[in-house]
Amino acid sequence: MIVEVVAVGTELLLGQIVNTNAAHLGERLAELGLDAHHQVVVGDNHDRMVQTIRTAMGRADAVIITGGLGPTQDDITREAICAATGRAMLFSEEHASELREFWRRLGREFPESNLCQAEYPEGAEQLANPRGTAPGLFLDHEGTMIFAVPGVPAELYQMLDEHVVPRLRQGTGSGEVLVSRVLRTWGYGESAVADLLDDLYHASLNPSMAFLASAGEVKVRLSAKAGSDEEARSMIEPVELEVRRRLGAAVFAVDDQILEQIILDELGRRGWTIGTAESLTAGMLATRLSLLPGSSEVFRGSIIPYATDLKLTMLGVPQDVIATHGVVSSETAMAMADGASKAMGVDVATALTGVAGPGVLEHPPGTVFVAVRTPMDNRSRLLKMPGDRERVRAYTTTTALQLTRLAIIGEWWKQSP
Amino acid sequence: MIVEVVAVGTELLLGQIVNTNAAHLGERLAELGLDAHHQVVVGDNHDRMVQTIRTAMGRADAVIITGGLGPTQDDITREAICAATGRAMLFSEEHASELREFWRRLGREFPESNLCQAEYPEGAEQLANPRGTAPGLFLDHEGTMIFAVPGVPAELYQMLDEHVVPRLRQGTGSGEVLVSRVLRTWGYGESAVADLLDDLYHASLNPSMAFLASAGEVKVRLSAKAGSDEEARSMIEPVELEVRRRLGAAVFAVDDQILEQIILDELGRRGWTIGTAESLTAGMLATRLSLLPGSSEVFRGSIIPYATDLKLTMLGVPQDVIATHGVVSSETAMAMADGASKAMGVDVATALTGVAGPGVLEHPPGTVFVAVRTPMDNRSRLLKMPGDRERVRAYTTTTALQLTRLAIIGEWWKQSP
Repeated sequence: MIVEVVAVGTELLLGQIVNTNAAHLGERLAELGLDAHHQVVVGDNHDRMVQTIRTAMGRADAVIITGGLGPTQDDITREAICAATGRAMLFSEEHASELREFWRRLGREFPESNLCQAEYPEGAEQLANPRGTAPGLFLDHEGTMIFAVPGVPAELYQMLDEHVVPRLRQGTGSGEVLVSRVLRTWGYGESAVADLLDDLYHASLNPSMAFLASAGEVKVRLSAKAGSDEEARSMIEPVELEVRRRLGAAVFAVDDQILEQIILDELGRRGWTIGTAESLTAGMLATRLSLLPGSSEVFRGSIIPYATDLKLTMLGVPQDVIATHGVVSSETAMAMADGASKAMGVDVATALTGVAGPGVLEHPPGTVFVAVRTPMDNRSRLLKMPGDRERVRAYTTTTALQLTRLAIIGEWWKQSP
Repeated sequence: MIVEVVAVGTELLLGQIVNTNAAHLGERLAELGLDAHHQVVVGDNHDRMVQTIRTAMGRADAVIITGGLGPTQDDITREAICAATGRAMLFSEEHASELREFWRRLGREFPESNLCQAEYPEGAEQLANPRGTAPGLFLDHEGTMIFAVPGVPAELYQMLDEHVVPRLRQGTGSGEVLVSRVLRTWGYGESAVADLLDDLYHASLNPSMAFLASAGEVKVRLSAKAGSDEEARSMIEPVELEVRRRLGAAVFAVDDQILEQIILDELGRRGWTIGTAESLTAGMLATRLSLLPGSSEVFRGSIIPYATDLKLTMLGVPQDVIATHGVVSSETAMAMADGASKAMGVDVATALTGVAGPGVLEHPPGTVFVAVRTPMDNRSRLLKMPGDRERVRAYTTTTALQLTRLAIIGEWWKQSP
């Protein structure tokens, strides 16, 4: 069963809002084993909305339209559905009284402009919206299911669970589900991963394999269609095991697990705290380590000695280490990690020093030394990062987090990215 | 001129990635005064990609295709463009050597699978991608401009600025040029800006005025169509002067000037240095202040006392200030700014303390105190930020930077956002 999501709103086209609804719907539909072939965004324009809804009806079994159900002049989803399906617009006195009642309970005067929300295309059912004033709509038009749901995320999510999903589940008939599992890897490039898994990629269409590179990591997605969740999972399992066997510690997370959480968990499990000393990344590592609720239980703080003299005064890096080896050196990075560990009383300290560019400082841009001090060890690594200043800083941050993860779990020297 | 964005990627349909590229492109196109009627997402499926590209070509003057340019088996944008335009796929030995050279410079072995990136549809120009290995493509097909750009945001952004925007600006064909100037404002909401400029908005269609709200700022776009750049600019100039007169210090930048550069310039002009002390943002301010080349001339460093005891030991915040007023208080923020100024020897220190959430710490989530100490003053302000943890941290960072700018130029108390 194919489902198409049509998002209505000029503010989406102008980039004033990011279409997170489409991602949420896509994720939920995939979990249900429904296929999505297209997602479309269209502005608040009657003719283009009608055309877009007709196109979607022509190629999908169900169409979910988000947005355009409010009370203002540019909310014309109801009208567009009438025009696309050739149905008359009706008015429900019952819905009108419900709307008045809703506003009365809010203790506010009913705005007459909201009466348009009691209108509905002939044959459509209204879907209750406990979180807002705009009801949704459901219509079975010549075998195609048409849903109209609010654009406000919280309203959409609830209506999706309570009204859309149950109807979609009844509507499939095929009984097939799609299950996906995403293995997140770090250390190999996309083409290296593809080469390592080439025979597996070609061996099967179900489960299927796809590669997705993003921000220094490569994701391997395994998807299976089957009669049940269990069956689909059991089809994915042996492939996942083989992928993990080939990629080893490069696989750092599964599905929506995130690196920051994994690091916090590994630290928490050992009863360790962490801090950073960052020169070229100037707090980017600290930002990531404090991203999640609960991070304050293991992340204690950071020292950002951007000016060289602060490396001496705030971190106690010995003057002669810098004089002998330079600011950008393995020795300075390790001395920074030691100093951070002492100054903040942390078990693990990750320290960075390097050249973000475009200027040269002892070394060419992209030269970075990362040191990670753990209760066992203090080791450093030289990185040569490609790209401009912004990219050097972003890649360095992710690499330093990955090296921190490897140092904590004792895999530092086994990994050779 | 109508531009349609087609995003390619099954991972978008499955909701594994949010389509932030579409929002970024939408925003940039709107700034240029170009129209967007539809945005489409299509999976990595040859026939549906071809159909989607054809539909876009049929209703838009330019089509920007994002994604599907990588080296793996599911990257088939090149093939789909050939099929949609009926062009042959050619292979460039020159591009192939460039790819080999790129990998050689990285010091890594060239993966043969990347050779597909030397392929291009007949008549297409390759667009350089300094940030990655996948080059973009540009093709003028029977008067329709077709661009293929990478899906990786940083690569896309740079290619957009360097290759796509200049071609779109030339592409209108009418002999007329469209010149846009964007005044970036902070401190007033969108409707307040619209009210202040209402008569100007209605006074003219050429130059025209538009308001674009995004991420805590409001952009005022002035666009003029004329026979030459100079003529268009001279039409915009008097309107810009009047807008600036009415909005005052709320206008902080023009076009692609960025806030960070403006702050560095204002500091440099005064011979001042800056540092930060950040609790809830944990280095996000430091990251922004060190974003640009040359920032080390004014930005000296930061102290991130995430754990409360480090506010005492690293910043010298008196125990009794915290005991009397709390960690999240105006007094603690100002003591942090003082301590940062002393510990790092900086003229300007911006300090933050607050509750990112979801948990409550003395105050509800979103409660933040920002203090900015300058050679003249040390003042603080209470912010009440909406949204979840991530949003609170992001908005706080931008607000703190704006308050730092106002404090430096001595406008802190005149501005009432």
